[in-house]
Amino acid sequence: MIKAGIVGGTGYTGVELLRFLSRHPEVDLAAATSRTEQGKPVADIFPSLRGVTGLAFSDPETTALKHCDVVFFATPSGTAMHQAPDLLEAGVKVIDLSADFRLRDKDEWEHWYGRKHACPGYLSRAVYGLPEVNRNEIRAAELIANPGCYPTVIQLGFLPLLEQDLVETDSLIADAKSGVSGAGRKLTRATQFCEAGESFSAYSADGHRHLPEIKQGLAAFAEDALELVFVPHLLPIIRGIHATLYARLKEPAVDVHSIFKQRYAQEHYVDVLPRGVHPDTASVNGSNVCRMSVFQPQNGATVVILAVEDNLVKGAAGQAVQNMNILYGLDETTGLDHAGIWP
Amino acid sequence: MIKAGIVGGTGYTGVELLRFLSRHPEVDLAAATSRTEQGKPVADIFPSLRGVTGLAFSDPETTALKHCDVVFFATPSGTAMHQAPDLLEAGVKVIDLSADFRLRDKDEWEHWYGRKHACPGYLSRAVYGLPEVNRNEIRAAELIANPGCYPTVIQLGFLPLLEQDLVETDSLIADAKSGVSGAGRKLTRATQFCEAGESFSAYSADGHRHLPEIKQGLAAFAEDALELVFVPHLLPIIRGIHATLYARLKEPAVDVHSIFKQRYAQEHYVDVLPRGVHPDTASVNGSNVCRMSVFQPQNGATVVILAVEDNLVKGAAGQAVQNMNILYGLDETTGLDHAGIWP
Amino acid sequence: MIKAGIVGGTGYTGVELLRFLSRHPEVDLAAATSRTEQGKPVADIFPSLRGVTGLAFSDPETTALKHCDVVFFATPSGTAMHQAPDLLEAGVKVIDLSADFRLRDKDEWEHWYGRKHACPGYLSRAVYGLPEVNRNEIRAAELIANPGCYPTVIQLGFLPLLEQDLVETDSLIADAKSGVSGAGRKLTRATQFCEAGESFSAYSADGHRHLPEIKQGLAAFAEDALELVFVPHLLPIIRGIHATLYARLKEPAVDVHSIFKQRYAQEHYVDVLPRGVHPDTASVNGSNVCRMSVFQPQNGATVVILAVEDNLVKGAAGQAVQNMNILYGLDETTGLDHAGIWP
Amino acid sequence: MIKAGIVGGTGYTGVELLRFLSRHPEVDLAAATSRTEQGKPVADIFPSLRGVTGLAFSDPETTALKHCDVVFFATPSGTAMHQAPDLLEAGVKVIDLSADFRLRDKDEWEHWYGRKHACPGYLSRAVYGLPEVNRNEIRAAELIANPGCYPTVIQLGFLPLLEQDLVETDSLIADAKSGVSGAGRKLTRATQFCEAGESFSAYSADGHRHLPEIKQGLAAFAEDALELVFVPHLLPIIRGIHATLYARLKEPAVDVHSIFKQRYAQEHYVDVLPRGVHPDTASVNGSNVCRMSVFQPQNGATVVILAVEDNLVKGAAGQAVQNMNILYGLDETTGLDHAGIWP
Repeated sequence: MIKAGIVGGTGYTGVELLRFLSRHPEVDLAAATSRTEQGKPVADIFPSLRGVTGLAFSDPETTALKHCDVVFFATPSGTAMHQAPDLLEAGVKVIDLSADFRLRDKDEWEHWYGRKHACPGYLSRAVYGLPEVNRNEIRAAELIANPGCYPTVIQLGFLPLLEQDLVETDSLIADAKSGVSGAGRKLTRATQFCEAGESFSAYSADGHRHLPEIKQGLAAFAEDALELVFVPHLLPIIRGIHATLYARLKEPAVDVHSIFKQRYAQEHYVDVLPRGVHPDTASVNGSNVCRMSVFQPQNGATVVILAVEDNLVKGAAGQAVQNMNILYGLDETTGLDHAGIWP
Repeated sequence: MIKAGIVGGTGYTGVELLRFLSRHPEVDLAAATSRTEQGKPVADIFPSLRGVTGLAFSDPETTALKHCDVVFFATPSGTAMHQAPDLLEAGVKVIDLSADFRLRDKDEWEHWYGRKHACPGYLSRAVYGLPEVNRNEIRAAELIANPGCYPTVIQLGFLPLLEQDLVETDSLIADAKSGVSGAGRKLTRATQFCEAGESFSAYSADGHRHLPEIKQGLAAFAEDALELVFVPHLLPIIRGIHATLYARLKEPAVDVHSIFKQRYAQEHYVDVLPRGVHPDTASVNGSNVCRMSVFQPQNGATVVILAVEDNLVKGAAGQAVQNMNILYGLDETTGLDHAGIWP
Repeated sequence: MIKAGIVGGTGYTGVELLRFLSRHPEVDLAAATSRTEQGKPVADIFPSLRGVTGLAFSDPETTALKHCDVVFFATPSGTAMHQAPDLLEAGVKVIDLSADFRLRDKDEWEHWYGRKHACPGYLSRAVYGLPEVNRNEIRAAELIANPGCYPTVIQLGFLPLLEQDLVETDSLIADAKSGVSGAGRKLTRATQFCEAGESFSAYSADGHRHLPEIKQGLAAFAEDALELVFVPHLLPIIRGIHATLYARLKEPAVDVHSIFKQRYAQEHYVDVLPRGVHPDTASVNGSNVCRMSVFQPQNGATVVILAVEDNLVKGAAGQAVQNMNILYGLDETTGLDHAGIWP
Repeated sequence: MIKAGIVGGTGYTGVELLRFLSRHPEVDLAAATSRTEQGKPVADIFPSLRGVTGLAFSDPETTALKHCDVVFFATPSGTAMHQAPDLLEAGVKVIDLSADFRLRDKDEWEHWYGRKHACPGYLSRAVYGLPEVNRNEIRAAELIANPGCYPTVIQLGFLPLLEQDLVETDSLIADAKSGVSGAGRKLTRATQFCEAGESFSAYSADGHRHLPEIKQGLAAFAEDALELVFVPHLLPIIRGIHATLYARLKEPAVDVHSIFKQRYAQEHYVDVLPRGVHPDTASVNGSNVCRMSVFQPQNGATVVILAVEDNLVKGAAGQAVQNMNILYGLDETTGLDHAGIWP
């Protein structure tokens, strides 16, 4: 059994991790820490876990996380970079669901996150946990930077186009829409029911923190300079991201759909739909699947990729468990083999 | 392995049955019939099941359901009563999720359902599949009448009060609120997004078809005549029922909460909350739990029971699988051991 | 023109007042104060009012509210009781949308609101602003206590029953459901989109602050002691309250529907539906109407009243404007004559 | 007074027309026809209009629409083209909210609508009712083709860019998201609450009927060939469209925001937000405003226009009334001067 700990289990990503790890057949969930809820049973904070776990949140200061095999950070940005080094030195594997280790360039990280990085030496040692790209590196990783929710679905959608050099890289557009849980559980006006409900708007059109992460991931496959316009929007749903991606084909006659089918044929958690079918976010609700389809309207020069995921699962906790499975040589679907819940 | 078939798998109850039975470790899902979708893969109709089941819907006329061990009917009322007798005579167990066998009184059935019953002789042979009341009978059943969604949560909420003779039976009130999936998948104006969304209303306040089913179940425990006012409402959520139950205590000083805790202490799928905590429907989303709490406002004569369930799970498909597990001597939680999905 | 001021215009009740008063043909909206937003144009805070009002929020300390004819308080409880006395002494009329002057009994107020009342002498001088009951007193009022949202719809629903002595007063039940805007605009976990959405629950089943206000209003018409069980629930909609009211008829053979039709025949803002029709909250969205219907299930002893209102309009800002119209001898519908917006 | 009639008043566009015209100070609403609801009071079908209009739906065969000054068609495509010619010949003005007269090219109309046009001669005589472009022509029109909901907001968003020749016209992208009411009131699976709610998807990515209408409108201002990719999505809200528009600037250094401010400075129903502010659909709920803002992410070559409208108001019934006001020389805001309802 893998002895696992969670730091920061009281957010939406945390409760998903608790749901998956409580039922994972190869995991012994040893601890979940919380500064604000320490001492309280997890199931008091999350009634959906009553009868599922008897664990109580513990004090982050005194919990012996070093006795774990693997520790997940489900904390806001800025926490893992302070605590991960000690754990890593003690031989504990770390899977960070926050953004602390996602960018390789320290200056870029400090620019977008507005503070100094606490352990920049680890930026190059972290493995970016996108299994469909870095499966081999993940197997041998000590520190896994679990990708952001937008970056996961946007990279998976653009990758086959860039890997095969099919599109112009100077005019990529990602029009992305996220459910409200993507904003986390902290109290904000924008995420109140009466402000987010029955409404829709873009935000951060000038530049969102996930932009450099996406560009870093895509640039590895682009021969020329890569320009990406990324406009996120807030969707009045709880879970789900839909990315609508636009790119200019170098050669409009190519069969893009076949290339996608082939690229992801062996991937359990990427599902390419038949031609002409549009994915919907509800179809991946609660599951670890990224589902996508390919359109080429009016047979023109622009290819349109539609891609969906559950931002809390493939975009966060599910992918973290998938990474843990790879790290420990388990079948990737262990503990993740849930059908989506619909409707 | 239990060889199982589903009749009518294209509604909301059907897709839930497909979700549970596809992953049930003791079940071989042999067939799902559909008149309208025959020949099409289940996963084409329900993309959430892509990668989960390779089954295709089959023709109800030619599918050899008699080769199954157990057949589930997830059909509208009026179908199972025509097809169940042949299957039962062939030794197949039948679990009917429709209302065809829920009432013991033929006249009452025909009054509320507005047609002649096709096999009234079976009404008395059917076992009413509420495990918390009829577990022993279910073990030996051939034909199980799976309870309705409202009747499940309302009976579970009232039962301890009636079993212990704590309340007046002439003034029971059930103010119940159901998510829209409770109305089924047929197209109606009232269930359109623009009519059901951002609104709330009661319906059938004059008398709803579930009333006689609830009264039949409660009357078994009432010494005197039982009067129940049942007002259902349509909630703008997809899944979930919340029942707010009111009854007059014969003796206000009794500790109702303790009686509930004791009554359901051994029941895996009934969860009595600590004093003062209100259940919410989201906490049972996707799970088979009925969660409830007890209030006695201002220490007055009226006791208030708040009870929630997922109408498609404990109120339908989950309870059907629970009944099947009992029927075959399995642990009741087999294939049902999902944590609720929250948020 | 009536010179009007608003104290505390940045909540949901405040923006509704601004919407109505900006367009009211007899009102000159002179000031809206806000401690947090002073100096900012109203339309910057509420983009829906761009092009509708050029007013900016002003400093509550320096705004000369004494030059107004009438001042509305759209503040949380505890503010108006400190500021109203000075205004009243200066001859300004005050319409308080908070709870500061709704209870006549000082001790009860202090019990439910957990603090000392700042000007208890005004409690008996305030007129309770429910026009359908107190129209004459409102005409002559100096200080109007605008009713709460739940109390408005629940009193209007029960009143004809009590005025005509039709029901037992020892077993009244109000099962009420409110949209999330009823909780106000302050940030709370319960009103976050991911917690309030796709869910439903009761709250304060042990006792809600609106209980004494409702009982005070109903007791005036009850000959015997009045017992009311009031269970509020949080609905996943933005606007709207639905009250389902239960009472035991003294004489089941009475024609309750006719009594309701007659009672409210002259009331512009109470609409009694035809027999058998259920009201829905969406039908009063944005309008000042309280709509209701009457049921007597199975011709039994229990009468059921279904009543809806927009909690921000008839339950708050609209009723406040209706009261102002009465106060100044205007037609009650002036500035309020909007059709509800549907869908 | 203008004597007005409505053909087809039972859809969502119809009820909005009824709301506006019932309260319009210069309109005498003489008739609303409906084949399915004839004889029934409008307020029985739409309870939100109880107390607002006493009109009953009338038989389309026998209603003397020729006695009207103006007739609005709120019918599905294919009705107005059969009935408008007779009315026009009788001197009645016609405002068609359907698509029958929106395309100038008969072949293109027949291609996209899949049938023969009944009166192709009128295609060139119809005036396209986008006031911000065709105000003068509308003044003199006999037959007004009221624009579609997507075409209104997308054209208003792109127009300043094309009029000033600021962008490449071979790579325009319109990523548009519409509330469910945009799909009309007919019963479909996709618009059921349980299928549209808590989900999001694109549709018709291969080609939507509004594409030729948008291209026709934009092409008038494009010097070169115009290529537009238009991907519509279904939003889980009732009302509101958000268009996110992308275009490549010929000269990135231009101040696009100023150009938009100037272009729409005199337009009452187009509101350009300050720099950096994102529009949200809720801010135009129930109002006739199209609200937009301009972004140029990372000062790159791509300009992003964010534009919102209420699809039933500026995208349908409100714009129809605005057109009628222009036609009769009234102030454009007459009867339309409602503030948006928020929240």
